Amino acid sequence: MTSQGKLKVGVLGATGTVGQRFILQLSNHPEFELVALGASASSAGNPYKDAVAGRWKQVQPIPGNVQDMPVKACEPEHFKECAVVFSGLDSTPAGPIEAAFRAANLRVFSNAKNYRRDPLCPLVVPLVNPDHFAIIPHQKAQMQPQLDKGFIITNANCSTTGVVVPFKALEEAFGPLETILVTTMQAISGSGYPGVSSLDILDNVVPYISGEEEKIEWETAKILGGLKDNNTAFDLHENSPLAVSAHCNRVPVIDGHLASVSVRFAKRPAPSPEQVKEAFAKYTCEAQKLGCPSAPQIAITVNEEADRPQPRLDRDWQNGAGVNVGRIRKCSVLDIKFTSLVNNVMLGAATSSVLNAEIALRKGYLS
Amino acid sequence: MTSQGKLKVGVLGATGTVGQRFILQLSNHPEFELVALGASASSAGNPYKDAVAGRWKQVQPIPGNVQDMPVKACEPEHFKECAVVFSGLDSTPAGPIEAAFRAANLRVFSNAKNYRRDPLCPLVVPLVNPDHFAIIPHQKAQMQPQLDKGFIITNANCSTTGVVVPFKALEEAFGPLETILVTTMQAISGSGYPGVSSLDILDNVVPYISGEEEKIEWETAKILGGLKDNNTAFDLHENSPLAVSAHCNRVPVIDGHLASVSVRFAKRPAPSPEQVKEAFAKYTCEAQKLGCPSAPQIAITVNEEADRPQPRLDRDWQNGAGVNVGRIRKCSVLDIKFTSLVNNVMLGAATSSVLNAEIALRKGYLS
Amino acid sequence: MTSQGKLKVGVLGATGTVGQRFILQLSNHPEFELVALGASASSAGNPYKDAVAGRWKQVQPIPGNVQDMPVKACEPEHFKECAVVFSGLDSTPAGPIEAAFRAANLRVFSNAKNYRRDPLCPLVVPLVNPDHFAIIPHQKAQMQPQLDKGFIITNANCSTTGVVVPFKALEEAFGPLETILVTTMQAISGSGYPGVSSLDILDNVVPYISGEEEKIEWETAKILGGLKDNNTAFDLHENSPLAVSAHCNRVPVIDGHLASVSVRFAKRPAPSPEQVKEAFAKYTCEAQKLGCPSAPQIAITVNEEADRPQPRLDRDWQNGAGVNVGRIRKCSVLDIKFTSLVNNVMLGAATSSVLNAEIALRKGYLS
Amino acid sequence: MTSQGKLKVGVLGATGTVGQRFILQLSNHPEFELVALGASASSAGNPYKDAVAGRWKQVQPIPGNVQDMPVKACEPEHFKECAVVFSGLDSTPAGPIEAAFRAANLRVFSNAKNYRRDPLCPLVVPLVNPDHFAIIPHQKAQMQPQLDKGFIITNANCSTTGVVVPFKALEEAFGPLETILVTTMQAISGSGYPGVSSLDILDNVVPYISGEEEKIEWETAKILGGLKDNNTAFDLHENSPLAVSAHCNRVPVIDGHLASVSVRFAKRPAPSPEQVKEAFAKYTCEAQKLGCPSAPQIAITVNEEADRPQPRLDRDWQNGAGVNVGRIRKCSVLDIKFTSLVNNVMLGAATSSVLNAEIALRKGYLS
Repeated sequence: MTSQGKLKVGVLGATGTVGQRFILQLSNHPEFELVALGASASSAGNPYKDAVAGRWKQVQPIPGNVQDMPVKACEPEHFKECAVVFSGLDSTPAGPIEAAFRAANLRVFSNAKNYRRDPLCPLVVPLVNPDHFAIIPHQKAQMQPQLDKGFIITNANCSTTGVVVPFKALEEAFGPLETILVTTMQAISGSGYPGVSSLDILDNVVPYISGEEEKIEWETAKILGGLKDNNTAFDLHENSPLAVSAHCNRVPVIDGHLASVSVRFAKRPAPSPEQVKEAFAKYTCEAQKLGCPSAPQIAITVNEEADRPQPRLDRDWQNGAGVNVGRIRKCSVLDIKFTSLVNNVMLGAATSSVLNAEIALRKGYLS
Repeated sequence: MTSQGKLKVGVLGATGTVGQRFILQLSNHPEFELVALGASASSAGNPYKDAVAGRWKQVQPIPGNVQDMPVKACEPEHFKECAVVFSGLDSTPAGPIEAAFRAANLRVFSNAKNYRRDPLCPLVVPLVNPDHFAIIPHQKAQMQPQLDKGFIITNANCSTTGVVVPFKALEEAFGPLETILVTTMQAISGSGYPGVSSLDILDNVVPYISGEEEKIEWETAKILGGLKDNNTAFDLHENSPLAVSAHCNRVPVIDGHLASVSVRFAKRPAPSPEQVKEAFAKYTCEAQKLGCPSAPQIAITVNEEADRPQPRLDRDWQNGAGVNVGRIRKCSVLDIKFTSLVNNVMLGAATSSVLNAEIALRKGYLS
Repeated sequence: MTSQGKLKVGVLGATGTVGQRFILQLSNHPEFELVALGASASSAGNPYKDAVAGRWKQVQPIPGNVQDMPVKACEPEHFKECAVVFSGLDSTPAGPIEAAFRAANLRVFSNAKNYRRDPLCPLVVPLVNPDHFAIIPHQKAQMQPQLDKGFIITNANCSTTGVVVPFKALEEAFGPLETILVTTMQAISGSGYPGVSSLDILDNVVPYISGEEEKIEWETAKILGGLKDNNTAFDLHENSPLAVSAHCNRVPVIDGHLASVSVRFAKRPAPSPEQVKEAFAKYTCEAQKLGCPSAPQIAITVNEEADRPQPRLDRDWQNGAGVNVGRIRKCSVLDIKFTSLVNNVMLGAATSSVLNAEIALRKGYLS
Repeated sequence: MTSQGKLKVGVLGATGTVGQRFILQLSNHPEFELVALGASASSAGNPYKDAVAGRWKQVQPIPGNVQDMPVKACEPEHFKECAVVFSGLDSTPAGPIEAAFRAANLRVFSNAKNYRRDPLCPLVVPLVNPDHFAIIPHQKAQMQPQLDKGFIITNANCSTTGVVVPFKALEEAFGPLETILVTTMQAISGSGYPGVSSLDILDNVVPYISGEEEKIEWETAKILGGLKDNNTAFDLHENSPLAVSAHCNRVPVIDGHLASVSVRFAKRPAPSPEQVKEAFAKYTCEAQKLGCPSAPQIAITVNEEADRPQPRLDRDWQNGAGVNVGRIRKCSVLDIKFTSLVNNVMLGAATSSVLNAEIALRKGYLS
């Protein structure tokens, strides 16, 4: 803990796109103090501003207190003093590095995909299922040797995050969903930097994002499901079969994943569009109740205008920490259809990890 | 008929976006000769190049033989010599003008929406249902007074056109579809000129296009359905209930409407993705069999690459006269899902009308 | 004055693009309180949120305290209590309305072009020439009848603003400029809403903006020049001939006008790039010295990276209140060349008017 | 020579962006027959369609006769039968490979930058200075051992090409230019694939392209200059000093480099805009006179509309083989200003090399 009573935290993959967002969120955080930055071996030893030169692609400049922080290799010894380590690593290095950090008894909040399907790791969208943290004691106990602090908590894929928040609100209000059909229109920032070539996306839509549809289809069930067996396993929504089908498209939008969604409820008759709208509007999540500083005031903002939400106009609402929905209406094939928007670089990435850590702090998982 | 044995044709709404496309398609057509151009009263009397000044937004220049053609008011007397009149009129003037032309015993092939739902007017996608022309004798007979030549044939909404061609191929191969869920990502040119403000669409997606979802949902049933009552009425697919649900989005793409589509067949078990792919590839339409000059060589091009079709790369294939599909795979909610692309300004608009006229010529409706 | 000691202010053209920016800047201003909104007669009588429905195109929502403010017709009687009236009117209505407001003894700070060339009206870029306010007593005295309060102060065209700030810094440091060659790449928001059609600008550059080149060429001389004849006339830089040539282009950028600039100094030898860079960096303007709340901390930010400033990354720096420059180097035709960026909707429009009023307040012109 | 009497030709760098354009231009050329494709060692041995899989980014599909052509390593032995070898190589491999091909007595027409400044290699824009081919005998003679066939001819940088054609027309009509100030707005395709990241260019302009300004400034003098010393050296415009200054910007445009240009003539008084317009319109180049199949009908198309040329609307005019100009008017700093457009992937790249070879064929350099 620092002299201001803040928890010391570190960021892995600090020079990457997600790492840059972590830095912006943590450089002036009321509860966390950023004390360690990790990047590839080639960057290690340099001041952050040099390590990231030519790759800092944020509208805000590099925070003054971070510019000269030394970048370290992603090795646990450099992060010993951190109560929390946030990982913005690419999936290739993330697997072994995150495991090594946990093995060194460090707490990892990861944005990488590697441990999302791990039967011991919670996959937590902070506005949806922080109750899944309850598997953490079991995760620690299963390690060899057992750990008293170290764990890995992952957050969801950015496009999954954008739809699972309204799905949770629907299940909470009306019981289980039965089928979900999602078509996404995803921003280029979802692919990192340099990511999508401009020649591929200007005046174009690319109807394919590798692995993305599978992520939405699989992650949704884990997130919407509960824990079982005395908090030692995930039930993957098994009590009520859930079929999810996704079409993923890349569009020439900088930030903000939009989704056209149709759902069918198990409950008959299905709720009306007005009831659904009301359920969205009144949905409140634990992060809000716990007073987390990065939580949105409104978890799901219901847009009333016929043509909203729109990525450019709505992605920065509430600093991108909530979800926007609109166009709630009857679906003649399933029950209800609507449009959903998530800021993929905020709630869809760094904000989720930071919020998860804020919730974990409040629930005692960081002590 | 002209000295070269071509049929004389005219274009209504000649200065608009669709009218410009008609002109490009007709200025060097092997069977039709463009002899009359109609536009608003304020343009009438001017040479075409002056009437359209500042609004010609085509990559190709105004054809030399059209530049100095005089623009006329949209009144039947100026089009008397035309065997066919193509209408690219906006819907506001289209209703009464097209009716007046028919009443003057002229044949109208219209791209406007006004008569698409008319119980006497065929709604024909040339690659799908030119058999609906068979209602024409009944349409003429119902007029007061009865007509020996005049009729109105409409083509479909641009986004409907892009999906109904693959649907037809599926129904031909596997019997009736039961449910269809379509999410479109539509080009800005679908909205005409000036149309969509750049401030609304740059770095953005607009999840709403007025009236578009209803058009897809309604038109699909009329087009895929047949005729009944001795060719005096449309059956609207009534023998096999068909539920269609559409989400329509505007994306920053110049030309080419992309759709993410999921379908369920009445037939159980449903065909496999491989069977569907084969059905698409072998689908051949009457326009091809009749040797229409504007028909595509391949009605439905099946793209094998994982990330195709794409608007920018595939919209001009075959001069935009066919449909491209790809990503044919199982849908875990309905049966099969795939991506479909139509060039909205070509097959989705002017090419459809011209092809309809070419088919009508071959089937004897223009004599 | 309000109970909080703020000056009451109004906005003309409140539903337009510039008017919306005025509202965002004034809804929470430390010195001004927004009490009156004017728009076209058709909007008058409605709450602001209804009057602007479908046209509010800002990332921020309509401020809560403005949503239900009644919109009034642009007539002086409705603005009597206002110490300052900001005009975001289009040029067509701006001429007579602004004159009528002045005649009613009201103070008008206008973003419209109508009175920029008026020999009695200061054309003030707040970071450059607030000394021109000294003509105000003469302006009032020339009115029939003489006015004790009413006047019109204009700010410059958005693209002029972006280059005249660095020009002022150069003249202050090195004496008069002799020739200026400016090529602009201007954002679509400079044209208002709906403004530029997406079909005109997507995947395109339009090498023409009506009247823009003339504005840059003429306004620069008035702004960089001084007052003469005992503060009763503008000298238009007449003591040192200044040739300005502009090429104006529209590019597919939402906000932020970029300019490639080459200049030649009267002084020989010309300053070096290093000297120019230093002159930019140390330039401080009166708005800063007076402590105006809307003034930037740094008037001219010098970007050191080879590829900056860029519109998307740098336009929101300092809330768009300053100018960014970069790529300062020798020009083999003139002396020095560099790149300049201004946020056209902020310093290039509403921020200039608000800053002018803040300066005027401090210099006693509002009492 | 082939059985149809065509010259056999090869392409180096066949899988790259420029190589793909060469293939499209050569797959159905009336005088050349494409018989050999060279690419990196890793591609060698594969059919072209496999070697280029995932990287073919052209609107046209891979020509049928090229799909299964085997790709070879870029070694002279595989190209022995080629009368001409076109090089679309990146600059890194281009230097040694092109030298090796020349040393093997092969004729290389290169789009790479490596030999543009070589004192023995002509830098030829086919619409401007094919008279520079006259140095070829000297180039061959200087090789060790002397060559009877092998040489290297380069074409210019894409942005240089777009301005040097109008400059040549001006010098031909009015004598030497004295100063030139060029600001370019360049398309993303100029940077190859994947090239410019979409995150860098969407809603943005990047005011820097590495090395580009120097290329324009240096190449212009070589191209506009003549030969000296009995056709053994380039005079680099030395008889009349020419100062060129360039600002280069990258804009979100797919194809087509636009330039805002100001020029000053040595001749006083300078020609009027009308005279300049006439000089552009009547300019005819040797490629046209010789009847080259890839030559444009009009070398410089003068656009009369106030807002043309525009990249999207004008880049494909004449298959991109000519240059478009517009907005010809007085410059208050230099003499005349105008806008110029070149299709950077056509005349700015592959078309130049092909045209150079067509001219060389007609002038006897290929026998």
